[in-house]
Amino acid sequence: MSDFSAPDFSRLSVNSATTKKWTLAEVVDGCVRAGIPSIGPWRDIVADTGLDKASKLIKDAGLRVSSLCRGGFLTAADTEGQAAALADNRAAILEAVALDTRELFLVVGGLAPGEKDVVAARQRVADRLEDLVPFAVEHGVRLVLEPLHPMYAADRALISTLGQALDLAAPYDTRAVGVAVDTFHVWWDPELKQQIQRAGREGRIASYQVCDFNLPIAADALLSRGMMGDGVIDFATIGTWVRDAGYKGDIEVEIFNQEIWDADGDDVLASIKHRYATLVLPFA
Amino acid sequence: MSDFSAPDFSRLSVNSATTKKWTLAEVVDGCVRAGIPSIGPWRDIVADTGLDKASKLIKDAGLRVSSLCRGGFLTAADTEGQAAALADNRAAILEAVALDTRELFLVVGGLAPGEKDVVAARQRVADRLEDLVPFAVEHGVRLVLEPLHPMYAADRALISTLGQALDLAAPYDTRAVGVAVDTFHVWWDPELKQQIQRAGREGRIASYQVCDFNLPIAADALLSRGMMGDGVIDFATIGTWVRDAGYKGDIEVEIFNQEIWDADGDDVLASIKHRYATLVLPFA
Repeated sequence: MSDFSAPDFSRLSVNSATTKKWTLAEVVDGCVRAGIPSIGPWRDIVADTGLDKASKLIKDAGLRVSSLCRGGFLTAADTEGQAAALADNRAAILEAVALDTRELFLVVGGLAPGEKDVVAARQRVADRLEDLVPFAVEHGVRLVLEPLHPMYAADRALISTLGQALDLAAPYDTRAVGVAVDTFHVWWDPELKQQIQRAGREGRIASYQVCDFNLPIAADALLSRGMMGDGVIDFATIGTWVRDAGYKGDIEVEIFNQEIWDADGDDVLASIKHRYATLVLPFA
Repeated sequence: MSDFSAPDFSRLSVNSATTKKWTLAEVVDGCVRAGIPSIGPWRDIVADTGLDKASKLIKDAGLRVSSLCRGGFLTAADTEGQAAALADNRAAILEAVALDTRELFLVVGGLAPGEKDVVAARQRVADRLEDLVPFAVEHGVRLVLEPLHPMYAADRALISTLGQALDLAAPYDTRAVGVAVDTFHVWWDPELKQQIQRAGREGRIASYQVCDFNLPIAADALLSRGMMGDGVIDFATIGTWVRDAGYKGDIEVEIFNQEIWDADGDDVLASIKHRYATLVLPFA
């Protein structure tokens, strides 16, 4: 490719949480205007639009759905809570089918209210995964285990490392259970290179999500995700590891950040394209 | 021991950062009043008092020094910064000798300004450790590698797991380099049990520090450490693992928390004793 050629945005996807104030129709229109071919919608924005209408909007615009965010929250300790979680995750699987994506993210959940036993809570994740896999397989949807940064272990996801996600996925067919590599969550892991290599060997990489880790950590710790280049993450190194592990799928930009949420959506997409072209694409 | 016997506080130590508004003399007096036999001073409070006077105060009061906090910050990328870090750590080693403790905590440091290469920065930690070990051995001081929670990886410590600390310690005599188990930093680690067992087998556990992980994470993420029982940590399980790994040393309470800093120091020590007796001691 010559230095003067246009950047190749064919693998770029924008997660709908990045342009939070936009409706799904606005995200779709924005991506079409920006020449971004793929989106990763959250279930709430799909529900606001209506599933059938959402699916039609996306297809009519010629966009792909890189993934659906999200199922999970599998750690309820009581029978009723477990049944509700299974019902919700089965609904999410059907929504993924309707949206024509095979990748359903799972944020697996934290401790039950008042609980402190992480070993038991993690076992419940494994048990609920076992419950869900047959339904996912039947519908051709892959359950994507997302390790979350350890600062969210207690209240959002007791899967904190890629190695742990791969261990949990190991009993299942690679078409049934995959893992996500989200730079924000895993950049700090001293075993990251080895575990990305392993994820590639084991055929498990279902998604590569990029955003930066901003410092100082935001007062609301959920909102410390930053535009690529604004934080501490080395996208060249991690991107090279993911590429060398054989991942060729969409690269999804998911940012929770008040300043970005307050900005003009088209400006945000323009920034994403620029940062993607300079920091991510050269190593993809 | 009968149910009616007094709790055994013989292994309890209070880190001086817990009662932040107290001078060293006040910490010493407070511990004597409370019947707490051991303290873990920070270097700044020792410097404020004067090293010789600090040492005499502690000895005259009949207290032990469980550890000195802290050396480290070893990741400077420039020659001048590296020389300064080595000089500062050698000074810390001599201070540990003067205070009659053999355990010097190292918070190893994060990325250099503008740097994003965690692999290179971690290598510099290993290189500086190699520089420091002979001086520490000569003076009978153990360099205690403290894994910090991954939310502090970029700016405070690129050692994020106990396993990583043990790998870094492995080339050295167990009297030269040890590791710390601080519940706040490591509770989330899916490999924690195995790595505590390994630390015991390898003779590396130099300190067990306890405090809780409070939610939500404080707006200043450094201040999310909580009184045992106020957060999500399972002290029974982790304490049992540490005990079964053979650790018999002091158990140090180190809490950075604005509410606790604002409270009366004697009240804080009373709370520590109560929580220690009920949540920590039964498994120690």
